[in-house]
Order: sequence, then C-alpha cells, then structure tokens
Amino acid sequence: MAPTPNPRILYTAIPQSLPVFGEHITFDESATIDLDTAELNGGVLLKTLAFSADPYLRGRMRDPSVQSYTPAFVPGEPIVNHTIATVLRSEREGFKAGDHVVGLLPWAAYSIVPPDARIKPVSNEAGVPWSYYVGILGMPGQTAYFGLKRLVELKAGQTIFVSAGSGAVGNVVCQLAKLEGLKVISSAGSDEKVAYLKEIGVDHAFNYKTADTNAELQKAGPVDIYWENVGGPTLDAALANMNRFGTILVCGMIHDYNSRGDPYPIKNFGAILSKSLTVKGFLVNNLIAAEKEGTAVFDREMGKLVADGKIQYKEHRYTGIENGAKAFLDLFKGDNFGKAVVIVADQ
Amino acid sequence: MAPTPNPRILYTAIPQSLPVFGEHITFDESATIDLDTAELNGGVLLKTLAFSADPYLRGRMRDPSVQSYTPAFVPGEPIVNHTIATVLRSEREGFKAGDHVVGLLPWAAYSIVPPDARIKPVSNEAGVPWSYYVGILGMPGQTAYFGLKRLVELKAGQTIFVSAGSGAVGNVVCQLAKLEGLKVISSAGSDEKVAYLKEIGVDHAFNYKTADTNAELQKAGPVDIYWENVGGPTLDAALANMNRFGTILVCGMIHDYNSRGDPYPIKNFGAILSKSLTVKGFLVNNLIAAEKEGTAVFDREMGKLVADGKIQYKEHRYTGIENGAKAFLDLFKGDNFGKAVVIVADQ
Repeated sequence: MAPTPNPRILYTAIPQSLPVFGEHITFDESATIDLDTAELNGGVLLKTLAFSADPYLRGRMRDPSVQSYTPAFVPGEPIVNHTIATVLRSEREGFKAGDHVVGLLPWAAYSIVPPDARIKPVSNEAGVPWSYYVGILGMPGQTAYFGLKRLVELKAGQTIFVSAGSGAVGNVVCQLAKLEGLKVISSAGSDEKVAYLKEIGVDHAFNYKTADTNAELQKAGPVDIYWENVGGPTLDAALANMNRFGTILVCGMIHDYNSRGDPYPIKNFGAILSKSLTVKGFLVNNLIAAEKEGTAVFDREMGKLVADGKIQYKEHRYTGIENGAKAFLDLFKGDNFGKAVVIVADQ
Repeated sequence: MAPTPNPRILYTAIPQSLPVFGEHITFDESATIDLDTAELNGGVLLKTLAFSADPYLRGRMRDPSVQSYTPAFVPGEPIVNHTIATVLRSEREGFKAGDHVVGLLPWAAYSIVPPDARIKPVSNEAGVPWSYYVGILGMPGQTAYFGLKRLVELKAGQTIFVSAGSGAVGNVVCQLAKLEGLKVISSAGSDEKVAYLKEIGVDHAFNYKTADTNAELQKAGPVDIYWENVGGPTLDAALANMNRFGTILVCGMIHDYNSRGDPYPIKNFGAILSKSLTVKGFLVNNLIAAEKEGTAVFDREMGKLVADGKIQYKEHRYTGIENGAKAFLDLFKGDNFGKAVVIVADQ
C-alpha cells in the first residue's frame, strides 16, 4: 500500500510569552507512514481519534534547563498530550486491532508506540463519544474528581469558589461540589459562560471581566474552599475573602503561564497566616499514583454520573488535526467554551 | 496600707506603620492599687514577674473593624500578653498566695483578674528562671513544638530552612529539628546571631543582610520544609528553592506587620503549583486546642529538654516595666538577640 500522509502539530521553538502559530508551533504535512508495513518492533500502531488541548502544555514549552513537574518538549518533535486512539495493528499482548486506548501520544494522525508505552484500554460501557475520554472521563475529569475528593474534606453547606468555572476542570469541580451539597461561586470570562454556569447549578456566577471579583466574593462569601485555576488578581481576591481555616487547592495558574519571569505579584499571602489557611498545589498524576486501584473508582463513578446525565459536559470541538494549534492557543484568549478537544478522525 | 504605684504600658493610638513610643504606646505612672484592700470579687490579685514581647502583638494594634485572629486592642487600655505572675491574694479556689501562674495579663506591675480568667498554675519542677514560662516553656516554645510535631511529618535527612532562626520561635525550631535528624539552614540579621545559630547546631547559617538568601538556599538546599517567620523577599527565595512535595509552615511574617495596606508582593506563588507544595498557616492556640491533654506533653518534654541542657535558650532581658515598649519596638529593628522578656519583679 502507498504511504499515507501523517500530518502532525510540531513544537518548533521556545516561546518567551504567548506562543505564536507558525513560529513556536507549526503544522507539518511532510511526513508519511505505511500503515501496512511500518515496523512495530513489538509495539502498537495507533490511529488518533481525538486529543485534548490543555493549558498545562504551556509549561512544557520551556528551556529544558528549567526544572518542572513535566519534562520540557523537544523542539522539532510533535506536541504530546492525552489522546484517544484506535489500534490498527499490534504486536503487543493485550492490544488488538479495533481496540480503543488512551495515552500521552503525539499530535499526529498516526503513531507507533513502543511495547512499554503507557496506553490504557477503554471499553466505553457508557456509550459516550470517544472524545469524552480525553475530557470529563480523562485527565481533566480526574483532576477535578481526585483533587476535590482527596485533598479536602467536603461538608454540605460549605462555600466553594471555582475560578474558570466553565473550563474543562472547573465545570466538573462545580458540579461535583453541588452534588456534595456545597454552595458554589464561580467566575468565567463571558456572559454566555456565566449563563452556562447557572445552568449547571452554580449558585453565584459572575463575569470577571465586567464584575469586580473582590466585591462578588464579599457578597457571596466567605469562601471555605477556593479551587484555583487562574492565579493573578483572582487569587488575591480569593485570599482576601477566605474563611478562617479555609483551603486553597492550586490546580492551575493560567494567568501566569505566558508571563514567565514576571508573574503577577500576590499581595495577600499574609491571609494564609492571619486566617490559618491551608494551600495545596497538586498534580493529578500524583493523586492517582496514591490510589490503590488507580483510576478505577473514578472510571466507575464518573462514567455513571455522565451516562446518567447527573453531570453535564460541554465540548468545544475543533475538527481536523490542522486546528490543533488553534485549539491550544485559544485557551489563553478564553476563546474556548467547553473542553477543548481536537477531533482527528471519527473512528 | 497606702496605695502602691501600679505602673503600666498603655496602648494609646492605632499606628499606621511602625508604632512610636509616646504616641501609640506610652508608659503610665498615674495608677495606684491598694494591695491589701482592693476588691477581688472572687478573682485573684497578681504581681507581675515577667512578660513577653512578641511580634504578633502588632496585629492587635489595628482598627477594630479589621477582622483578624485576635481581637484589636482598645486604645487607653494596657497592652496584654503572656505573663508570669505571683498570686498575692486569691478568692478563687485552686489559687493561693505564693502560687505562680501564667496567663494573658496586662502590662502592669499588678493586676486583678476575674474568677473565670484563663490563668494556669506553674510548678517549675525544672527549676528554671520564671521568665522561661513566657518564652521557651511558654507560647513561643509551644509554637515551635506543636507546629513542627503536628503539621509536618519530620524525617531524618530532610532539609529545613528556618528564617529568623535566632528569634524566640526560630531558635527552638532549629534545635528541635536537629534533634529529629534534619539538616538545618537558618538566616538571621547579624553576624553575632549567625555565630549563635552555629553554636546551637545549625548546619548552614547566614546573615540575610550581607548574603543573598537565594544564593545561600541554592547552595544548601533544596528545602523540604520552610519554617516561615518573616515573609517578604525571604519567602520568595524560599519558594524558589523548595523541593517537590515540600511544606511551608507559616508562623509569622514580621516583614509585613508594619506595612499594612502595602504588603510585599510575592512573585513565586506559582512554585506551590509547579512543585506540589503544601502551605499551612497556623496559630498555636488552635493546635493546643486540638490536643487531648492541652500542653501536657509539651510541658513534660520541653521542660526536660531545657532542664537537661539538650535545648539551649537565650533571653534578651529588659529590666523594669518602663522598658516594656522598648522590648516590643526593638523586635521590628532586629535589635533583640534572644527571646525578648521584660523582668518586672524578681519574685
């Protein structure tokens, strides 16, 4: 069979602030792959169905000498992120053509992964779209679920503030918190997103671009738990409106991801002392590693909540791998509405 | 008997930044008390032996409309803090003339406390100077002990950084950490204090006024536990040099106590996310309230460590109640060396 085109999204240069398409990230159509004869060397040939665009990827686009929790991307190589794929051919035990798997895979139409690659079979008993497995049933959903259930003791009647509440993680946090009987305050960056927050049950939603976050929290707080997705002035306002003995879960700080070397200066750190707060930074991988059964409890519970419609889920779908860079860059403009996923193939 | 002079240190006005003697704090010699006939109304007449001067008192010198963990002082009334005193007369069961007690008492030569006042008898089986009971065997010692033993899991071989290591709390933290097998890094504000830190076993001590904190921590770190006494640029340097999964215990932020409304802006909050740190603000009172036996375990263990000379202790003694304000104000200039105590009477 003739070689098949294998379009890819490449990481091409280290950005100092906001990455620019064509400079730091490019779309490459030069590669091909022979799907029938390409050597697998004991591994698996995968066809990408969908991948996720997440803010944390910005952290991998850095000078490799800067230590962080994930290795730096290598210029010239494809971006890598959570992906759902179909097995086309396999030399690895436990995987056969037609299976579906999730894993950290290159942003490419096809990929060959080595025999020890960390890919996980997905059965999709809930019968949801496959792309859900890189969103609410994948890393962002796991982040919300394990962060909320393992890092803080939730009590009905408490007040939680979730920044970026319409985002991939935030909206799941809002809904899980509602199911636990908490009062939920949440901010988002457009009136349309605020309307969505109200739809999914948020008690007090506001547009941080037109409202004053501090005033909103004074009105609806004080805050027992702050789920931090953004950093910057929102964090300062949250610190000022925390309740005594409150907890801040630091999941993301998108405000600073593109201001490397000059992060937003936080004025209200002293509230941690004066109000006896606890602040926990975390990575979902470490929370999962501490689980006896890995993600099993999440797979069961969240799968059921989504299948039963008890948790709503909204995707922002970008169709075609050529839109992968846009899906990622839109995150920093607040232009996505719903979980950003790139649909590469239907099956 | 003729009335006896009862000199006092009064809080007279709300300071905006550094309190000034004669304006915000004054020495008052106008009051008298008749030690034989003053009405006790079921309470206890106490003669002050010594009281403690602590940075946290600055937080009580504020506009009462500002909420915080301790009530605001009332202008015109004496400053109140941890004091060791002798009972002169008592109408309260369990207290008799000659007993020693500790409690939050006014900065005055004598005081009458109501029947429900929280005063605690002290037996001093260790035979140490009475003033130790407002220092290493009192609140500052308890802060170090319960903070370190209850808020973080100490493991031999870990590295702890203690700012203001020659201070009342810091020096106890350094020594307790050494006893647990930790490597101790500590900063202080003079070469004399640095020499003292080395004497009490600190592995890497430096003068933050002449050395670069960030460079010192790069050399001696990374830091698993940061005991925060100061805030400001030291906190930013600590955040930059924390180890993954490290813990920051926020005990004090003296850098900001007199910069109300304009605290030092923290640039490295993002390290909490990127290094999965946990940050805990705490108050010793809440830690003690969570103890089944109150301070009993501390009284036993720390009393023995001090009596056996396993923990060294240094006091900066100010003799005479008239020096109470100076003892307090010196804290913000770094002019104390050792625990600041004011000796009001010998027995």
